[in-house]
Amino acid sequence: MVGPSPAVAQLRSAVRPGLTRSARPVLVACSGGVDSLALAAAVAFEAPRAGVPAGAVTVDHGLQAGSAERAEATADLLRKLGLAPVDVLTVAVGTDGGPEAAARTARLSVLEAAAGEARIALGHTLDDQAETVLLGLGRGSGPRSIAGMVEERGVWWRPLLGVRRATTRLACADQGLPVWDDPWNADPAYTRVRLRAEALPLLEEILGGGVAPALARTAAQLREDLDALDGLAAAEHARLVAPDGLDARGTADLPAALRRRVLRAWLRDSGVPDVQAVHLHAVDALLVGWHGQGRVDLPGGAGVVRASGRLVLRPGGSGANPRHHEEHRP
Amino acid sequence: MVGPSPAVAQLRSAVRPGLTRSARPVLVACSGGVDSLALAAAVAFEAPRAGVPAGAVTVDHGLQAGSAERAEATADLLRKLGLAPVDVLTVAVGTDGGPEAAARTARLSVLEAAAGEARIALGHTLDDQAETVLLGLGRGSGPRSIAGMVEERGVWWRPLLGVRRATTRLACADQGLPVWDDPWNADPAYTRVRLRAEALPLLEEILGGGVAPALARTAAQLREDLDALDGLAAAEHARLVAPDGLDARGTADLPAALRRRVLRAWLRDSGVPDVQAVHLHAVDALLVGWHGQGRVDLPGGAGVVRASGRLVLRPGGSGANPRHHEEHRP
Repeated sequence: MVGPSPAVAQLRSAVRPGLTRSARPVLVACSGGVDSLALAAAVAFEAPRAGVPAGAVTVDHGLQAGSAERAEATADLLRKLGLAPVDVLTVAVGTDGGPEAAARTARLSVLEAAAGEARIALGHTLDDQAETVLLGLGRGSGPRSIAGMVEERGVWWRPLLGVRRATTRLACADQGLPVWDDPWNADPAYTRVRLRAEALPLLEEILGGGVAPALARTAAQLREDLDALDGLAAAEHARLVAPDGLDARGTADLPAALRRRVLRAWLRDSGVPDVQAVHLHAVDALLVGWHGQGRVDLPGGAGVVRASGRLVLRPGGSGANPRHHEEHRP
Repeated sequence: MVGPSPAVAQLRSAVRPGLTRSARPVLVACSGGVDSLALAAAVAFEAPRAGVPAGAVTVDHGLQAGSAERAEATADLLRKLGLAPVDVLTVAVGTDGGPEAAARTARLSVLEAAAGEARIALGHTLDDQAETVLLGLGRGSGPRSIAGMVEERGVWWRPLLGVRRATTRLACADQGLPVWDDPWNADPAYTRVRLRAEALPLLEEILGGGVAPALARTAAQLREDLDALDGLAAAEHARLVAPDGLDARGTADLPAALRRRVLRAWLRDSGVPDVQAVHLHAVDALLVGWHGQGRVDLPGGAGVVRASGRLVLRPGGSGANPRHHEEHRP
């Protein structure tokens, strides 16, 4: 008897720990493309051995001619792999944020609704992770934006974040699985496609190879660091907040990275919308650059003052308004 | 009277806070290229107004024909700007790590030796910062490798990390300063040059512009986050370490990011060389995956065991050796 090919074995090893960790049923989200099809085959093989019920869903975005037939063919293939139940979900894709983002938003929302008690397995690979980190770098919205995707959070499970895309392609070929190459995945109109096809290969060439694993490795360590800071900040926030405001001296004593998180959490919990770095900086100055300055205005009309050793949120309108903000929260 | 051009004004604003913050003398490290020459001119203008003595140094790497004359011409220009003293430093460049790295190592070491009581001002711009972050990403050695350069640390002062290279070029032109364009800065043999000339422009095009400021912004926030974690970990390390080992229960209770730092600091202070992620992971398992397992071997021959609620370092050789490691430290 011949064992599985190295690629197939690697895929199965990637899903096994997650299946033995929890008895929760799994639904594989499968487009019919290489990554999610290789994932579906691996889950179909390992789930019965782990005693985990495993089905699949495929999403018809209704954006291309023949997409309904395409989705049915994928569903048939998933059933033949032994997954059950297998459902086709149809979505209405909006236009917010461009076609790529709109299709993603619609897909994630219909998948989340379909999950029920199950985890949704997604086929994101190490290469997707590297692209995500580069996209986050381009946004420049801070460390969390370059920390990449998490293996398990909420209903989402991404067991292939350590597997290269070349391996999923090989695994499909080794198992004779008919792969559907979404033409969108090669359309240079899409930012992610251009990062994949142009930017990462150029960086690989310049930096001497191994860039995608390097990005994924740094992102993984970064997630651990940021999770620790977020957890520590949540504990400090709980300690420093009171119904009448935030302890100014105690907050000022924290390192800048924790102060920023505590202030952000406090303002968010107080109902202040859309707090930007510039607002945080001004509120922070009430703590660490305190010289008796007045009210700091915030988006939505509210403001923060320092009074009696506390930061206090004042509702919209005049900074002299003494009424408590809780009365005015939407 | 006409004021300075916008570019010249921006350069002067960039150096002003650092000059008013400290009365420590400044030495501008100037190659004669745009960035460091624009910096030298700004410091020459602002330092007397802040009451700060300001001189300059230029380094002759001896790697190109005519480099000595080149360095003397730069020194003359720096003297004409009003900086004093101005010295030419000569260095012997080795070969370790390639010509780029070897020249940098030699330069930094001779500058540091020349500093004395002074701060050394370096002309690194926001564009250099973005290149540094990309280089760090390619290395994949964790968040600190993508946190970029720090504005002030030790003898080094980098006031231009928020200024674009285009602005330094404009500032030199506006002041009629004769700029020397180092041919090495356009040599595609150098990794950094290729990141600058090829990778960053491609990323700008794909991600819709603003990539260099985005990288610099994320790096700045990341430095703040990592400084906080390092500070918190140092405090935990001091709390948990004892002459006979590290408190296992207390360390196990820390978030992973702090645990990793405490273990690394403990092993480093105990004289274990070259600790890698794989070793940290194995030692960490003595804390969070404890099931009575035995000694974890480390580079240099030492090992760690868990005994009586502590992690204990054992010297090289047998894991059964009961002698205290302090007796055997080099």
